Amino acid sequence: MEKIREGKTKTVFDTGDGNILLKFRDDVTGTGDVVDPGANTVIGKIEGKGNASLKLSKHFFELLKRDGIRTHYIDADLKENTMLVKRADTFGDGLEFICRLKAAGSFVRRYGRYVEEDQPLDYLVEITLKDDDRGDPLINEEALVQLKLMTKEEVSEAIALTKKITKIVKQECERFDLELIDIKFEFARVEGEIAVIDEISGDNMRVRKNGQAVMQKELCDIICGK
Amino acid sequence: MEKIREGKTKTVFDTGDGNILLKFRDDVTGTGDVVDPGANTVIGKIEGKGNASLKLSKHFFELLKRDGIRTHYIDADLKENTMLVKRADTFGDGLEFICRLKAAGSFVRRYGRYVEEDQPLDYLVEITLKDDDRGDPLINEEALVQLKLMTKEEVSEAIALTKKITKIVKQECERFDLELIDIKFEFARVEGEIAVIDEISGDNMRVRKNGQAVMQKELCDIICGK
Repeated sequence: MEKIREGKTKTVFDTGDGNILLKFRDDVTGTGDVVDPGANTVIGKIEGKGNASLKLSKHFFELLKRDGIRTHYIDADLKENTMLVKRADTFGDGLEFICRLKAAGSFVRRYGRYVEEDQPLDYLVEITLKDDDRGDPLINEEALVQLKLMTKEEVSEAIALTKKITKIVKQECERFDLELIDIKFEFARVEGEIAVIDEISGDNMRVRKNGQAVMQKELCDIICGK
Repeated sequence: MEKIREGKTKTVFDTGDGNILLKFRDDVTGTGDVVDPGANTVIGKIEGKGNASLKLSKHFFELLKRDGIRTHYIDADLKENTMLVKRADTFGDGLEFICRLKAAGSFVRRYGRYVEEDQPLDYLVEITLKDDDRGDPLINEEALVQLKLMTKEEVSEAIALTKKITKIVKQECERFDLELIDIKFEFARVEGEIAVIDEISGDNMRVRKNGQAVMQKELCDIICGK
């Protein structure tokens, strides 16, 4: 198998038969000493973190599959910490769709003049470019279309999908008394159709239990069992 | 007359009879030694700059009036460097609508991965909050509505108006062999309807002549005569 890319938390291989293998590592991103899945710098390792990300992703991708949502997911090997996925064509070098149920993080930093931390939001969708060098800038629908990253129809479809999937994840979290605050998805074209790619785990979402942040491994224990 | 506020380049007075008087000063904003109308820090004065801003604003507001576009403009006193305007209710503490005909400035800084400087854009509209402390952050339509800054209908109307007015200003620039690159407008509710407020001058637009940037005083000389 040929290594295609070394991501911040996953290594990407070409299986040679048309699919892609993602190896989940234990690296965590953050700022200074503080672990922050939204940050762009690897600050260290947490043992078992890669396995927890994979278990959660397997759980959520299978959940989405049951609801008829297209994803790149094929299978997961929890011993090898690998996920087999379909080949995807990203929009440009990648776009992220964030869905917010409560104000937190960058949303409050940007709009703190008008919003309070934790203020309820109604499945508010924001789109950002995956571009570490430029701080993953926010982009609006018209700019996405004029820069030819997506068609107008694709943007609308991806926004609708974002809200639909967020609802599914939110309901799943509620089964475990977890509160979903916000979540981000990456979409790409898989077999010509828009599909969710990358992972769906504590690294993509802000989740709280009794008001306290729940990080990746704890989230995995709660949702997937110890 | 009661002084209401000291802005970066204008002082705002209440006339006592329901209107507002704007006094245009010679202060210029920039970064370091470089004059940049988009910057948020006053770096010095340029004699005659306030008068040039006022002359240009008078010119463009009267042009828009002829085309039936609502503005807050009533009259200008070029000797006193004052503009009499109608009272306006801003959306929050103010929103700016930017219309781009070519990629420049912050657009290229944000989306440089996908756009080249001067790449043509098709009346691309972006909306930013007036919030110096947070670097005038970009905001999308859904966030504007959910934060109750504008209704969905008001956002659509303001975007359509932005494109319409940009077309008028672009055509006016072309009469003087000037190329409009981008322009920003502030909208507010005036007598219950959406109207253009603040000023329309070289401080709000990027204009070139033979490929060279044209700053406020030169722009005034070209458009309004010496």
